[in-house]
Amino acid sequence: MKIGIADTTFARVNMGRVAIDEIRRHASVGIERSTVPGIKDLPVACKKLIEERGCDIVMALGMPGGVEKDRMCAHEASQGLILAQLMTNRHIIEVFVHADEAKDDQELAWLLEQRTREHALNAVKLALYPKELEKAAGTGQRQGFPDVGPARQ
Amino acid sequence: MKIGIADTTFARVNMGRVAIDEIRRHASVGIERSTVPGIKDLPVACKKLIEERGCDIVMALGMPGGVEKDRMCAHEASQGLILAQLMTNRHIIEVFVHADEAKDDQELAWLLEQRTREHALNAVKLALYPKELEKAAGTGQRQGFPDVGPARQ
Amino acid sequence: MKIGIADTTFARVNMGRVAIDEIRRHASVGIERSTVPGIKDLPVACKKLIEERGCDIVMALGMPGGVEKDRMCAHEASQGLILAQLMTNRHIIEVFVHADEAKDDQELAWLLEQRTREHALNAVKLALYPKELEKAAGTGQRQGFPDVGPARQ
Amino acid sequence: MKIGIADTTFARVNMGRVAIDEIRRHASVGIERSTVPGIKDLPVACKKLIEERGCDIVMALGMPGGVEKDRMCAHEASQGLILAQLMTNRHIIEVFVHADEAKDDQELAWLLEQRTREHALNAVKLALYPKELEKAAGTGQRQGFPDVGPARQ
Amino acid sequence: MKIGIADTTFARVNMGRVAIDEIRRHASVGIERSTVPGIKDLPVACKKLIEERGCDIVMALGMPGGVEKDRMCAHEASQGLILAQLMTNRHIIEVFVHADEAKDDQELAWLLEQRTREHALNAVKLALYPKELEKAAGTGQRQGFPDVGPARQ
Repeated sequence: MKIGIADTTFARVNMGRVAIDEIRRHASVGIERSTVPGIKDLPVACKKLIEERGCDIVMALGMPGGVEKDRMCAHEASQGLILAQLMTNRHIIEVFVHADEAKDDQELAWLLEQRTREHALNAVKLALYPKELEKAAGTGQRQGFPDVGPARQ
Repeated sequence: MKIGIADTTFARVNMGRVAIDEIRRHASVGIERSTVPGIKDLPVACKKLIEERGCDIVMALGMPGGVEKDRMCAHEASQGLILAQLMTNRHIIEVFVHADEAKDDQELAWLLEQRTREHALNAVKLALYPKELEKAAGTGQRQGFPDVGPARQ
Repeated sequence: MKIGIADTTFARVNMGRVAIDEIRRHASVGIERSTVPGIKDLPVACKKLIEERGCDIVMALGMPGGVEKDRMCAHEASQGLILAQLMTNRHIIEVFVHADEAKDDQELAWLLEQRTREHALNAVKLALYPKELEKAAGTGQRQGFPDVGPARQ
Repeated sequence: MKIGIADTTFARVNMGRVAIDEIRRHASVGIERSTVPGIKDLPVACKKLIEERGCDIVMALGMPGGVEKDRMCAHEASQGLILAQLMTNRHIIEVFVHADEAKDDQELAWLLEQRTREHALNAVKLALYPKELEKAAGTGQRQGFPDVGPARQ
Repeated sequence: MKIGIADTTFARVNMGRVAIDEIRRHASVGIERSTVPGIKDLPVACKKLIEERGCDIVMALGMPGGVEKDRMCAHEASQGLILAQLMTNRHIIEVFVHADEAKDDQELAWLLEQRTREHALNAVKLALYPKELEKAAGTGQRQGFPDVGPARQ
């Protein structure tokens, strides 16, 4: 089992390092990493991690900026990540934190790290323990901010 | 005949369980299930259900959040689901309930379950009784809220 | 020569029946029909009509709802229809009438039928008499509402 | 060398005829033409001109309407044209004039013809004299309305 | 190692020449260039540089205009560039400067050149020194305007 990590120099936290740290707490797997300039470079980086470096699942880590043009970039990257998955039949867990989700640099750093850690655990579950996710189906899980919970208590 | 069910931990009702319950009322078919974190993970989950687990048709069940970014996620997931269908020549019935379609948690839970049930029946018809759908062509069918009916009474 | 007809149970006029009636007035061809729940199910339905049921050209008939979310659905369906054409090298004539193009149910029913009929004729011309379309190039043709005509009279 | 011309009956000037006239002034090449109802029919028409009728390069000529829905149609057509190029490794020169770019019918007719002529020359250069384009790199060329010129005079 | 350069006659600075100059300062590699009319012509130009002219990585250089329609063109081009990468498993570094990012022609010229130079260096690193990018992961790098730096100082 090999997990790929793709991240960017644009983000303001070393998301790749955080993801690797969290994965290592939960699973003994091989890890391949690719760092690219920005989020629009992630789709092919992920596909190369799968097809050229043998990864079974990949995490795509990025921090879109906070203005309108950045939201469009995030949209384009997301579409590319979905396409890369369909071309390879492998899951790519997208972990994007929009710069405007946090009220200041401190919260931004916290959110970037926290969401990365929670999705790293999702990646491990998808790859190794898929029944764990099925048990949590429909329970209003969130990554970073608190879970919302099921609609019927 | 095998029907695939893909759902999420993000949704606030166990849509997968509801779909399976409804399908079993109408047809004796094999069922494969895959639960993923969010709606953007659904396209490849559905494609894998078709290509790796032998499903003839799949239901993609999700609950997009209620703010602008969530609508974009839903759009990306929908495009991916359409692409997955075109790559496999199999139908994937998308069942999305936007969190802001309901006025409170109680109505949300009801709508998530009701739309899932009505589309589960659509999936069964598409797979086993396509002429049933042809008979209902142009009759203003809706899933969840009431049917609108034909424009000419 | 075989023409495929894909329509929906969501629409409020039996567009498939109208299209078949109009095609039969102009050409003696085989017809295959597939009715699906909504417009997002049309792309793969059309592709299956081409690849599994031998159609040379297809009409995709649908009525998107009148609110913002419906416009996005129509956009997703349209992109899928274009992709299905590129994957098959066959024309798929999209006939969409947005619910908010008409002022009431009566006009909606008229428009759904009229646009379907005029595009059915386009489908016949594309399949059998392509030179007819070339003769009308740049003449401001419309389907449903009146033609606009050329910019220079 | 064969150049394909795809145009529409929706446009209000015979753009195909204009393009063919202009190409013939600059190059002695074969020409194939396909006229379709609207701009969303152009992507597959262009792909067929390349793959079934042997064109080396294609011009896609269209006039999107002036309201919001038309802009979405143009967007969908453009995405399809880009995809058709990527599937064939051939250039397709898109020549779209939005109905609302001109202040009246007379200017619209002029703009439709002028932009078509200038892009016809671009198509000839791309196909036969690519170094001509390289010489004009970064010089602020426009098609139809006047060139803007380089940012540094 | 061969680097491809695709640029446009629409831009207002000779971005291709700038990129080639910068690449030559950092690496001794082969260079192939293709100049096209506008940014929507870039995706297939890049794919041809990879598949027909043997480039290992490509820079796509363009200057979208400053109005709404131009932003849509940029979006379409970006999607095409991502798709071209996924079809070839090669990186294409997109360098777009929107005309409205600069306050006047002088700043526009500076920004077009500066961003091109900084991304040319990214292209060299991606192709030859990928570990350099990994060292800069999460450090808030920007191209053109000043770097933002990490969220935690």
